[in-house]
Amino acid sequence: MFEFHITAKNNRSRTGTFTTPHGGLITPVFAPVGTQATVKTLTPEHLKEIRASLVLSNTYHLYLRPGDELVRDMGGLHKFMQWPNPMLTDSGGFQVFSLSNTRKIDDDGVTFKSHIDGSTHRFTPEKSIAIQENLGADIIMAFDECSDPNDLAYSKIAMDRTHRWAERSLKTKTRPDQALFGIVQGGVNPDLRAESAQFISSLDTPGIAIGGLSVGETKDEMHNTLDVVLPLLPENKPRYLMGVGTPEDIINGVLRGVDIFDCVLPTRLARHHSAFTPEGRLNMMNATFARDERPIDETCDCYACRTFTRAYIRHLIVAKELLAGTLLSIHNLRALIRLMESIRVYIADGSFESRVPGLLNQWANNAKRAVSG
Amino acid sequence: MFEFHITAKNNRSRTGTFTTPHGGLITPVFAPVGTQATVKTLTPEHLKEIRASLVLSNTYHLYLRPGDELVRDMGGLHKFMQWPNPMLTDSGGFQVFSLSNTRKIDDDGVTFKSHIDGSTHRFTPEKSIAIQENLGADIIMAFDECSDPNDLAYSKIAMDRTHRWAERSLKTKTRPDQALFGIVQGGVNPDLRAESAQFISSLDTPGIAIGGLSVGETKDEMHNTLDVVLPLLPENKPRYLMGVGTPEDIINGVLRGVDIFDCVLPTRLARHHSAFTPEGRLNMMNATFARDERPIDETCDCYACRTFTRAYIRHLIVAKELLAGTLLSIHNLRALIRLMESIRVYIADGSFESRVPGLLNQWANNAKRAVSG
Repeated sequence: MFEFHITAKNNRSRTGTFTTPHGGLITPVFAPVGTQATVKTLTPEHLKEIRASLVLSNTYHLYLRPGDELVRDMGGLHKFMQWPNPMLTDSGGFQVFSLSNTRKIDDDGVTFKSHIDGSTHRFTPEKSIAIQENLGADIIMAFDECSDPNDLAYSKIAMDRTHRWAERSLKTKTRPDQALFGIVQGGVNPDLRAESAQFISSLDTPGIAIGGLSVGETKDEMHNTLDVVLPLLPENKPRYLMGVGTPEDIINGVLRGVDIFDCVLPTRLARHHSAFTPEGRLNMMNATFARDERPIDETCDCYACRTFTRAYIRHLIVAKELLAGTLLSIHNLRALIRLMESIRVYIADGSFESRVPGLLNQWANNAKRAVSG
Repeated sequence: MFEFHITAKNNRSRTGTFTTPHGGLITPVFAPVGTQATVKTLTPEHLKEIRASLVLSNTYHLYLRPGDELVRDMGGLHKFMQWPNPMLTDSGGFQVFSLSNTRKIDDDGVTFKSHIDGSTHRFTPEKSIAIQENLGADIIMAFDECSDPNDLAYSKIAMDRTHRWAERSLKTKTRPDQALFGIVQGGVNPDLRAESAQFISSLDTPGIAIGGLSVGETKDEMHNTLDVVLPLLPENKPRYLMGVGTPEDIINGVLRGVDIFDCVLPTRLARHHSAFTPEGRLNMMNATFARDERPIDETCDCYACRTFTRAYIRHLIVAKELLAGTLLSIHNLRALIRLMESIRVYIADGSFESRVPGLLNQWANNAKRAVSG
């Protein structure tokens, strides 16, 4: 069911196909995030139009609202949100640690309070998998614990727990039409990361995720961690770098052998009026665009760029019209998906590695984390 | 340029075609409102998909933001918002009277303060037409004064002023590619309305608007006013009932000979989670829809109804996802446009008048003004 074929390699970078019950993915792939069973402000038609292939949704959010059993009874996540193509859910772990209140972790699981209404809930590996089986995504994640990268002692504890939870996640899983990925943790410590990469690789899973990055570490720490982890992972399984990232992070991830990415950045920037462009990340509310008859990006093929001027989009932003967020989401997602399309071409023609400096330079202004909107 | 052909009549009701520089309208027609050069949350593609033909935009809002000269310099309203089909702008009068602060009316015009920043502005008939010529809609309105329907003395003063302003609007107009409609006023007084209908009919305009209704009068007063005005208007000009309205008001308007309607109701209801359905106006946030696998309206052909369940739409509302407003706007607008399509068929086949009681009954719950959301 879940076959991964590498069709071309360029040193450590790979392009290939990963088959799922809802169709194949061509890797490297970027997944837009549909936290609450919707990629904010976009219809599934918009997602098809920008050639999204994989969509991520969040287990923590859907468990709380509308509830995973409701989603199951409505026919599963694909049918509920009318996304007919591959989907991925996370384990809920990261959100429990970052969003919920007064969480209490023990070796069996984590008890937490909902950020919505303060009600008490408990996730264990078994519960996370049960929820993800109710949701029904094609790719699901083992329950894991993400540690503070600067806390070595805690990183060790969290890594050990993540390993035991990965085994329990794998053991409790029942649906053959879902691919469970184990998650490599270990903070930014090379020894822990190597240990985790070897342990997670030893499990019988069709893919491997790398967690605990883009959570406050430096770029060098991220790259060093990838340089430790990726060579230890089996070649024949897709690698998913969770929650990453910026265009710069994606290019650097592919360079090191990552196949799957997801990030809220393109849609979050859109809601803050910010657009990826070859000129850098533009705040489209800026008065300099008031009479600018060009599209957001003259090189872009998205609906927003084919149709509207910067002047119109700036007007929508100033007038607080929601269509601005829709158009900028379409553009920013399409910009990253176009980047992935280019990267796949470059890996296939053998030019990717030599193009990395140029690509990084091209996206340099867009890699800034600051949103000036 | 602006030719109106009646293709079928059913007593006072008519169906026909009105040609404009941006294509023909089939009447009776309902115009979605795009106050700030956007029908809230929808792309032009969505508007085409629901078969919208005429879109209204508001002179007062566009004058203040982004400015009519900017819109002109960007190629006019059609190009700015990428709506290639017919458009209509109002005169700005109604918004000046209902939205702006500390307005001061004299026989020459009105001085008012912007509701956005408190800055002082002045509209005269000449200024309103100049703005509308900059915006470039196909159908534009004479500058008018809408009175409190319950104040007879003021209704007389406002009507007289409206007549003088209509003459000035007509005199100052320069663009041959815009159809200027005069506006009948007179509150709810039959004598004033008859006088106004006769005066406005005497002007050389390709169409006539009826203003000052749906502003607080009773349904009987609205119907009685239409019964006075419409028989006095020339047969061969389209009649536009401004800002009306509910499905009930539209059916009653067509019955009395109205050809063009506009109203913010469908999109405003959508933002309050309310949907037009054969069961009545439904608050889609209601918990009874949590597991409802039916579409909003099983008889509807819109994208939202073809694609999503009530359960999903309720989830989006509860989770405060903006896609809910987009989907409900699509549905509510399509519901009214479908109503207009049916009405045109019924007028053409001679059955409209006999179907009015059935249509009113069918839409009875939807005609309620209360929004339970």
